[in-house]
Amino acid sequence: MDIYQESIKLHKKLKGKLEIKSKVKIKTRHDLSLVYTPGVAEVSNVIYKDNSKAYDLTMKNNAVAIISDGSAVLGLGNIGPYAAIPVMEGKAILFKEYAGIDAFPITVQTQNTYEIISLVKNIAPVFAGINLEDISAPRCFEIEQALQDIGIPVFHDDQHGTAIVLLAALINSTKLAGKKLTDLRVVINGAGAAGTAIANLLLCVGHDKRICEPVREIIVCDSRGIVSKSRNDIQNNSWKMQLANITNRKNIEGTLADALDGADVFIGVSTGNVLDGKLIKKMNKKPIILAMANPTPEIMPDVAMEAGAFIVGTGRSDFSNQVNNVLAFPGVFLGAIEARAKVISNSMKISAAFALADYVKKPTIDNILPSALDHGVARHIANKVKNAYFDEQKLLKSL
Amino acid sequence: MDIYQESIKLHKKLKGKLEIKSKVKIKTRHDLSLVYTPGVAEVSNVIYKDNSKAYDLTMKNNAVAIISDGSAVLGLGNIGPYAAIPVMEGKAILFKEYAGIDAFPITVQTQNTYEIISLVKNIAPVFAGINLEDISAPRCFEIEQALQDIGIPVFHDDQHGTAIVLLAALINSTKLAGKKLTDLRVVINGAGAAGTAIANLLLCVGHDKRICEPVREIIVCDSRGIVSKSRNDIQNNSWKMQLANITNRKNIEGTLADALDGADVFIGVSTGNVLDGKLIKKMNKKPIILAMANPTPEIMPDVAMEAGAFIVGTGRSDFSNQVNNVLAFPGVFLGAIEARAKVISNSMKISAAFALADYVKKPTIDNILPSALDHGVARHIANKVKNAYFDEQKLLKSL
Repeated sequence: MDIYQESIKLHKKLKGKLEIKSKVKIKTRHDLSLVYTPGVAEVSNVIYKDNSKAYDLTMKNNAVAIISDGSAVLGLGNIGPYAAIPVMEGKAILFKEYAGIDAFPITVQTQNTYEIISLVKNIAPVFAGINLEDISAPRCFEIEQALQDIGIPVFHDDQHGTAIVLLAALINSTKLAGKKLTDLRVVINGAGAAGTAIANLLLCVGHDKRICEPVREIIVCDSRGIVSKSRNDIQNNSWKMQLANITNRKNIEGTLADALDGADVFIGVSTGNVLDGKLIKKMNKKPIILAMANPTPEIMPDVAMEAGAFIVGTGRSDFSNQVNNVLAFPGVFLGAIEARAKVISNSMKISAAFALADYVKKPTIDNILPSALDHGVARHIANKVKNAYFDEQKLLKSL
Repeated sequence: MDIYQESIKLHKKLKGKLEIKSKVKIKTRHDLSLVYTPGVAEVSNVIYKDNSKAYDLTMKNNAVAIISDGSAVLGLGNIGPYAAIPVMEGKAILFKEYAGIDAFPITVQTQNTYEIISLVKNIAPVFAGINLEDISAPRCFEIEQALQDIGIPVFHDDQHGTAIVLLAALINSTKLAGKKLTDLRVVINGAGAAGTAIANLLLCVGHDKRICEPVREIIVCDSRGIVSKSRNDIQNNSWKMQLANITNRKNIEGTLADALDGADVFIGVSTGNVLDGKLIKKMNKKPIILAMANPTPEIMPDVAMEAGAFIVGTGRSDFSNQVNNVLAFPGVFLGAIEARAKVISNSMKISAAFALADYVKKPTIDNILPSALDHGVARHIANKVKNAYFDEQKLLKSL
């Protein structure tokens, strides 16, 4: 039985990978009076006078909604809200397993941007945070942006979770290659949600120069080649134009091959097999290849190594250097929730990436990141994310 | 420490009365591959081809959303979505405790009817049913009505849960009084969500004359007296006009006292202390008093008994004959979900009421209903509700 049939069998048996568990038993009338009426009325009264007390007295302090419209699920595409349920359940399980967070999957019937924004705003009271998941670009940008002021963190994991783990992988790979982040020429293949978020995060990694200098040279490619301000076909795509404006400083035009000429890093968030050994040979010394396409990476690790790659990471668990979001989102949410942050800021994301990188005591070319099964990662990241939040608050107050 | 302070203390300790529990442990890469990527992709594929498979492979088969806008909570009124959280958590616990259903509380920021309708429609994919809760009238009618075609049952418990338990109480009380439902003169004091639903259910109790003849004489009163077609102040209230059109056959006008003259039953879903001994003395022989106002009933049981009441029920657990919604909604949802019914029809509600009544083997004037702590009630009701659904489907097919 292959993994797919085994998974179907398990899902049939479980009928849902998660369930609601009550923390109290109801055996006597007194129990009922405490958890429900009349006792609960006083709890409601206290919260009515001060809504923030909901954090102390209800599940709000630890609940996260996983919201997806099923428009861009894993490698499956626009499969809709029903087919997305098992994926979001899986995500909820990871939240619980790694961070103890009570996440609940809500897959929505609509793919209308404004309906999703309104829905998320309206369900926010019972949650401490919102994880947007598998929503297609560019709607994911609009939705996330519109929700930054609702009072709880709203985080699109396909963007920022991926960007954080990629940055962590890059930090340790660069160190091993004896290079500096600020000197890198980075090529990102893929200009969707993940590619855009990675470019943004790499650019602001130098926001605090005590920690790191910024990455200066980033070129993003999409299926039509290098994203540049001069390209006619993106003039009406405001999200790609924005990307063109903040990357590609020398305004190079051309193909992925042109972009890779002398590059230090290839980050693939695109589709399988778009990279080959010849292209790697055009790159700078000690090229770093992070090929994230799933299940078939942009290049297979053995092919990349044979062509001279210094380090290869993929999204897959059956090769070394698995670059997996599960290393980031549980800790990021845990830290943000514990700090009661209202947003997850860039400095919190960058701290998360550095925390993830420094969690590996002695990185090697086969171990740039911790194992996806390491249950200590989330707590380590959460502490650093909390500190980043408190530092930022102090800074903002001092201005 | 009184019950209120004890409840606050418990809620502070728990920080949420429910949590998410994962049914699987993630210890190996293989575990991860089964519950998440890549294995889960096949589960998604199966559901993509046939959305109904979500019932076999995901939590959809057992998940209920408890939706409230906090506009009409218990005796507390319009306390909003934050203060409503502990009440809805309590409700979720009762769902789990009595019916094993995974209910999740979603209290919403908006009190706009159309936004709530749109939101519930949109979050439906992951749920097997929707419990609307503590939404004020008449918005609750509009919202529930608009949601009857979304493919899963949508049930406003303050209306129908209350109506079912009241009908069950009435069935056993009437039997003990040696009367017949169809001969009763029933006065319902309160024309909000509960009062309206009770009137509707009593009127259609005779839908299947093999089971029961209809209740013919129902008079509803609100704070201004008897609801009648002639009343000027309700001409523009379409919900009250509808109520006036289906009740009060003789088009009586006047006060609650006028309505009670010769009545067999008083059902109070109004406010404390509106009934007194004198009014009870005006009623027919063996008057039945179901005084549901909480925490102070329309009349205290001892006062009612002294004035000649034959049976007195209240919503309170510290008196005999507690008429509590928890006796109905777990079983009703369990039956509807197991049957995969798309709506909870009147015949399902009536079956639930008869099931609840006949669960009491030997009713007495102090025991017209089972204890709210009896864990066997929900299963008994569920089976009858399922049968009612299947009978109805057969009937519809035979037409």
